[in-house]
Amino acid sequence: MTMFIDEYVKKICADAKSVAGELYRASSKQKNGALIRIADALSERKAEILAANAEDIEAADENGVPKVMIDRLRLTEERIEGIADAVRELVALADPVGRGERWTRPNGLEINCIRVPLGVVAMIYEARPNVTADAAALCIKSGNACVLRGGKEALCTNRVIVEIMKKAIYEAGFSPKCIGFIDTPDRAATTALMNAKGLIDVLIPRGGKGLIRAVADNAHVPVIETGAGNCHIYVDEYADIELAVRVAVNAKFSRPSVCNAVETVLLHEKAARGFLSAFVKAMPRPLEIRGCEKVLAILPDAVPAEEQDWAEEYNDYILAVKVVPSVDSAIEHIRKYSTGHSEAIMTSDSRVAKHFISRVDSAAVYVNASTRFTDGGEFGFGAEIGISTQKLHARGPMGLDQLTTVKYVVEGNGQIR
Amino acid sequence: MTMFIDEYVKKICADAKSVAGELYRASSKQKNGALIRIADALSERKAEILAANAEDIEAADENGVPKVMIDRLRLTEERIEGIADAVRELVALADPVGRGERWTRPNGLEINCIRVPLGVVAMIYEARPNVTADAAALCIKSGNACVLRGGKEALCTNRVIVEIMKKAIYEAGFSPKCIGFIDTPDRAATTALMNAKGLIDVLIPRGGKGLIRAVADNAHVPVIETGAGNCHIYVDEYADIELAVRVAVNAKFSRPSVCNAVETVLLHEKAARGFLSAFVKAMPRPLEIRGCEKVLAILPDAVPAEEQDWAEEYNDYILAVKVVPSVDSAIEHIRKYSTGHSEAIMTSDSRVAKHFISRVDSAAVYVNASTRFTDGGEFGFGAEIGISTQKLHARGPMGLDQLTTVKYVVEGNGQIR
Repeated sequence: MTMFIDEYVKKICADAKSVAGELYRASSKQKNGALIRIADALSERKAEILAANAEDIEAADENGVPKVMIDRLRLTEERIEGIADAVRELVALADPVGRGERWTRPNGLEINCIRVPLGVVAMIYEARPNVTADAAALCIKSGNACVLRGGKEALCTNRVIVEIMKKAIYEAGFSPKCIGFIDTPDRAATTALMNAKGLIDVLIPRGGKGLIRAVADNAHVPVIETGAGNCHIYVDEYADIELAVRVAVNAKFSRPSVCNAVETVLLHEKAARGFLSAFVKAMPRPLEIRGCEKVLAILPDAVPAEEQDWAEEYNDYILAVKVVPSVDSAIEHIRKYSTGHSEAIMTSDSRVAKHFISRVDSAAVYVNASTRFTDGGEFGFGAEIGISTQKLHARGPMGLDQLTTVKYVVEGNGQIR
Repeated sequence: MTMFIDEYVKKICADAKSVAGELYRASSKQKNGALIRIADALSERKAEILAANAEDIEAADENGVPKVMIDRLRLTEERIEGIADAVRELVALADPVGRGERWTRPNGLEINCIRVPLGVVAMIYEARPNVTADAAALCIKSGNACVLRGGKEALCTNRVIVEIMKKAIYEAGFSPKCIGFIDTPDRAATTALMNAKGLIDVLIPRGGKGLIRAVADNAHVPVIETGAGNCHIYVDEYADIELAVRVAVNAKFSRPSVCNAVETVLLHEKAARGFLSAFVKAMPRPLEIRGCEKVLAILPDAVPAEEQDWAEEYNDYILAVKVVPSVDSAIEHIRKYSTGHSEAIMTSDSRVAKHFISRVDSAAVYVNASTRFTDGGEFGFGAEIGISTQKLHARGPMGLDQLTTVKYVVEGNGQIR
C-alpha cells in the first residue's frame, strides 16, 4: 500500500512538473485570466462545495474532531465568497516574474538577472479548505505549478474545490495538471512528498508543530518551514504600563490559536507588580497563567511554571509569565526559547529599544506594538503563503516574491574567458 | 572516538555562536579594520605559512595525492600575497548589512525590513588553503561568524592561516572564536557539522560531487549546494560555426577542472559536420570525445558514448558530444541531464535564442558566450563564496548578499490588531 501511495504521489508531482513550463512562461494577463475564472467558478459552484463540506463536517463530528478544528473546516456561502474574493485580489498584485536588473560588463556581456518561478511548489497543510484555493492561486500568480496535500478532515471539500479550479484553469488555456492534488488520507503521502526529489522544487509544510518539525528534519527536497511561533513580549522597566497591558491583552486574546499570538510575557522586576495587577483586570476572559516564583508571589492563584513552559507554543488561553532582572536577561531568555518568529519590547526608552532590536534575532521584532501584526496582509504584501521562521530564502511573511527565484540570462557575441 | 569528534565539533560551533553577536552588530568600519589586519598579517607571516604548506605537500606526495590536487594545495609567496590581496579587496565592497526598506502602514506602524547577517556560516571545502582565508573574510565582511572545515591534505597550512587570522581579528577587537576551525582530519567531523542543528545557520559544502550530494541529502542543518556543473553548449542550425568553435574550445580547454567548464556539446544535425571538423582542428591539445552514433559517423576515432556519459561531470579533457534534430530536442536533453548550473546556445537567430532562454531553467543561460563566465568576479559581484545550483535562497554566484537574511523591525506606539 505504501509503495502504491509513493508511486501515486510521485505521478502527481511528475505530472505537475511536466506542465509547469506553461505557467513558467505565461504572461501576467494569462495568469490573471486563470485567477478570474477560478474565482468566478468558486462563486458559481458554492452549492457543490457546501455539499462536500457538509460531508466532511459530519464525518469530523462523528470522529470526535475538536470544535476549534471543525470551525476552521466549516464553510458557509459567505466564507466561499471570501475565498473567491481573495483569489480576485491577487489579480491586482504586481507579477514578480520577469522583474530584473540588467548590466553590461566591460567585455560587452549583457547580464540580465531575472525573477523566474520556482517550478513546482508542494504544500502540506491543515484541514482548512480556504488554504487549498489560496495556495493554488498564489502559485498560479507566481508562475508555479502546485501539488496540494490538505488535512484529511477536509478531503471531500478540497476535492471539489480542486476539481472546480482544474476545470477553470483548463478553460483559461492551461493544463489541469498544473494543480496537483493528493486525493488520499493516507499519511504515507506526506513521506512520499518529502522524497519527491527532482520532481518538486520546494515543499512548504503548514499547520501543526509536529508535522513541520518532521518535514524539516526528514525531507530530501528543499523545505521552507512556516509558522512555529513561541512569541514573547518583554515589558521593560520604562514601559508605559497601560500601553503594555493593552498590547499584551491583544497579543494573547485576539486569536490565541495563531502563530503570532504571544506565549510568554517577560516582566522587568520593577514593572512586574504594576503590569500584572492591571493585566489581570483587563483580561476579557479567564486565562491560565503559568508563572515563575516571583509571579506567584504577586498572583498566588497562578500555576507554577515548569521548564518546558518556556518552550511551549500553547495556541490556547494559557500564558507563561516570568520576572527578569534586566533587559539583557529578557534577551537571553528569548534567545534560549524563541522559535524566531516575533518578539516585542514595551518601553519608552529608545536606547533600551535599540539594544533589544540589535540583539534579538527573530523574523519580526516589535517596539510598542502587538506581535499579532506579523502577517502578509498587515505588512502590506497583499497575500501570504505562510510565515517563514527560517533564515534562508524567506523570513517572515512570504508573499509572491518568495515563490520565485532568479535566473541569469547572459547575452554575448562570442566572448571567451 | 566519533562521539568525541561530535562533541569537539559542536563545541567549536557553540563557541562561534556565542560570539557571533560581535560581528552581527559590528560597524562596517570595525569589520573592515579586521580584514585589513588579517590581510597584513598574512602578508607578514608568509614564511610560517610556507613552512606549514611544505609539510602538507610532502605528506601529500608520500600519500600519492594526484598532481592536480597538489597544485591546488601548493602555496608560493606570490600566491599568499594574492590571498591577502583578495581579503583587502573586500574592504572596498559595500556592506550588505543594515541596508533596508522602510514603509509606514495606515495604522502608523513603521516597518523596516533590514538585511542582517545569517549568524554562523559553516563551510566544508576541498584542500585549497586560499578558500580558508577567502571564506573567513567573506563571513567577517557580511557580519557572520564562521566554522571552517578544509580538506585534510591542507590541514597544517590551514591551521597556520587560521591562527594568523584569529590573532588579527582579536587585535581588531573581536573574539578569536568568531573564526572556528575544525582541526582534525577525522571524517566524522563532517557528519557532526551536518547534525549541528541550532548551532550553525547554514552549511555550505564545496568541492567533490560526492561530498556535496552526501551533505545535501543528509544534513539536518540548512544547506546551500554549490558547484555541481554538468554544463552544456548547444550549437544551433543557425550558429556562426567559427564563433561556436571558439566558445566551445574556451569552455572546455581553458580550465577543465572547474564547475563552469562545458561537459556536453549538443549539435544541431545541420551544424554537426561543420562544427566537428573545425573544432577538432582548433583543439589546443588532445581531447577524448565520447559521441553518439552520428558523431562517430563523422569522427570515427571518437569513443561511443554510453548513457551515463550524458550525466557525467568529467572535470577533465573529455567531452560528450551528441547530434540532435532540433533546438527542442537539445532543450529536452538539457532538462534531463543538466545540474542546473550553466548552459549556452550558439545561434544567430534571436527567436531561437529566446525560445532556448525561456525553456532552459539553469542558474545561468548564455547566448553566444562561454559558460566559463559563471563566476562572482566575472559577473561583477566582486567576491564569491561559491556557485549555488539550488533555487532557494541563492542561485548562481553567491556574493556577500547571499550570506545575509532579513529582519523586520516594526515600531509603533501601542498598535493592536
